[in-house]
Amino acid sequence: MIRANENYLKLKASYLFSDIANRVNTFQKEHPDAQVIRLGIGDVTKPLTPELIKGFHDGVEEMAHEETFKGYGPEQGYAFLREVIAKQDYQALGADVSADEIFVSDGAKCDTGNFQELFAQDVVVAIPDPVYPAYLDTNVMAGRTGAYEDGRYKGVVYLDCVKENRFLPKLPDRDVDLIYLCFPNNPTGSTATKADLKVWVDYAIENKALILFDAAYEAFIRDSDLPRSIYEIEGARKVAVEFRSYSKTAGFTGTRCGFTVVPKACMIYTQAGEAISLHDMWHRRQGTKFNGVSYPVQKATFAAYTEQGQAQIKQRIDYYLNNAAVICQAMDDLGFEYVGGKNSPYVWVDGDGRDSWDFFDLLLNKAQVVCTPGAGFGRCGQQYIRISAFNSLENVELAMSRLKEALQ
Amino acid sequence: MIRANENYLKLKASYLFSDIANRVNTFQKEHPDAQVIRLGIGDVTKPLTPELIKGFHDGVEEMAHEETFKGYGPEQGYAFLREVIAKQDYQALGADVSADEIFVSDGAKCDTGNFQELFAQDVVVAIPDPVYPAYLDTNVMAGRTGAYEDGRYKGVVYLDCVKENRFLPKLPDRDVDLIYLCFPNNPTGSTATKADLKVWVDYAIENKALILFDAAYEAFIRDSDLPRSIYEIEGARKVAVEFRSYSKTAGFTGTRCGFTVVPKACMIYTQAGEAISLHDMWHRRQGTKFNGVSYPVQKATFAAYTEQGQAQIKQRIDYYLNNAAVICQAMDDLGFEYVGGKNSPYVWVDGDGRDSWDFFDLLLNKAQVVCTPGAGFGRCGQQYIRISAFNSLENVELAMSRLKEALQ
Repeated sequence: MIRANENYLKLKASYLFSDIANRVNTFQKEHPDAQVIRLGIGDVTKPLTPELIKGFHDGVEEMAHEETFKGYGPEQGYAFLREVIAKQDYQALGADVSADEIFVSDGAKCDTGNFQELFAQDVVVAIPDPVYPAYLDTNVMAGRTGAYEDGRYKGVVYLDCVKENRFLPKLPDRDVDLIYLCFPNNPTGSTATKADLKVWVDYAIENKALILFDAAYEAFIRDSDLPRSIYEIEGARKVAVEFRSYSKTAGFTGTRCGFTVVPKACMIYTQAGEAISLHDMWHRRQGTKFNGVSYPVQKATFAAYTEQGQAQIKQRIDYYLNNAAVICQAMDDLGFEYVGGKNSPYVWVDGDGRDSWDFFDLLLNKAQVVCTPGAGFGRCGQQYIRISAFNSLENVELAMSRLKEALQ
Repeated sequence: MIRANENYLKLKASYLFSDIANRVNTFQKEHPDAQVIRLGIGDVTKPLTPELIKGFHDGVEEMAHEETFKGYGPEQGYAFLREVIAKQDYQALGADVSADEIFVSDGAKCDTGNFQELFAQDVVVAIPDPVYPAYLDTNVMAGRTGAYEDGRYKGVVYLDCVKENRFLPKLPDRDVDLIYLCFPNNPTGSTATKADLKVWVDYAIENKALILFDAAYEAFIRDSDLPRSIYEIEGARKVAVEFRSYSKTAGFTGTRCGFTVVPKACMIYTQAGEAISLHDMWHRRQGTKFNGVSYPVQKATFAAYTEQGQAQIKQRIDYYLNNAAVICQAMDDLGFEYVGGKNSPYVWVDGDGRDSWDFFDLLLNKAQVVCTPGAGFGRCGQQYIRISAFNSLENVELAMSRLKEALQ
């Protein structure tokens, strides 16, 4: 009899975005003329920039001719792309990362989801709360947790990110083996300094733990003091894997490209204590279960690294950052406490005692603005909402003026 | 301490293609003027057809403009693509498959590799020999096998595909839960009739087993009697998942698109015997760990279903099938026994007692032709080589005339 991986049965059904959709649909039916503004899902709205479109078309055109046609490419990504990533995203920061430590993929969601396959089933996992739900769900599916009770999975070490710790997780009070970190953070928009990250790198070195560092929002960093990569921290090459995405950086949510850095210095251990190269393991995993990213997509990605490409995508991010500033200003004017919105497209707003779904309903009903209730990201989000800067400036301004009218 | 998934340590290092590359390089160094012809790896050589290129460019252009830009798409694939697949690939054959049973992905390698995540770790897996190595390796990584000994993993039920059974696996002599089948077969090129498949479907129904059916080479079928889909067999909707790929069909090895069909009638069971929807499980898996295929790639794929697209890709496949016929003719002339080459791009040649690596060396040294030694696909391939039709007609003809000269 074909039996199921019963760990899937532990998964709490995620109704977050379908619940949101249902509430918005109901509202829209009752108010057919209302112009609802969506600042919920973190999806870009601006088209790909001209330089990237040119690279994309060029890549497609190469596929049309026998002399330039590309069949199977390297699973790790083409060298032309890996080299420019290593040079511009890392070596330019003084971070020691080489091209053959980079694995190009179709996005950080796949990589952060798949990476846990490399670990023993009984490693202890530390996950921030609030958090991007996929880190948790993929570990549940793999059998690394117990049942779901009172809003949390048994066996997971939750790292509370709350006002008292500036929404930065503190070191856990018990030993953990695998640590998920994400800065600039989704959903809170909080950022970590080099000193903040160093605490975790030191912990990982001392405890032979491993950090999975999600840097999907790195391009939003404008403070030159803030680290853009965990490899700016000494020792991180030994204990950290970094995930990057072009989704928000280059507007690639529908184009699909990202990459993962697995330094050759990163070791993982057998039960007997023997060190194994994590790089070799991920290489084997990708070689067996992945066939590389579409060639024209890799060409479009490469175009993001030209001088023009860099200038154009910076302009896009500046646009969203300006939206975020408009949101922050409105929150200031309304007297709401929040974090994020600087060096991040997300603003995490304290509902001042309101339940996050009540706050969601209030915004929808009184201002026709859709946000994301913080409860969808974990127990620590129950009194927060996330407002996303991914929309047009006009819509963001209109949304904020409606909020001010409704809530003042 | 971060501990490894030690199942990875059981993996036999696969040196097949690097061994081939090394031998070819050595030969090329010793014979710098020799023009080596590669009929080894199953990679297409012809560019994408004009209709597909047009669809691809159109998709890219949509990404350039705010009104047509696409952000996150449905993880399962856009409805426009799933609907045309259901209609033209299934309903046209009389196979009952609906659009919402189709999951578009970046290729059959990912899907065949990832699908085993849905099953309990101790299900008994039946795998043909010879076989596409990824089916085996992904189950090894997941801990479903014992150690590698004498060329085989303990715990796997190998289904020998040999001359005596027309290279079609026979029902196993012990109970199995999960069965991998691939027709037209890689590497042997053998095909299965409806009656052949019905034996397996009946077995699966009777034993509550599940068939993972890899139909990546379906487009090469020209005999109207042969089934193109397992869903042409009565009852298969209850017990079979089908994987398809555009890699060989549309020349997409570097473009990356495929899909998996998970019928809603397909059930899987808990230890306690409770039925669970396999469709729901895969939906959850993909929703959690995958973010959909690049939108322009989906547009290019859609173009393969237009009247012109269909005609153009048929022409491409006819071209490779003609190459295969040239290879078969040469084998006939040389008096070699073989299977495949009809309804398949692969010809599986019996080395007449030769070890497959010796046969490989013979072809390389005497005719400067590269094939794939059958031993790379399993123990039953040890006296075979695979010759691939993926090259230009000129090269295939030259290769065959060299073979005839060298071996006659």
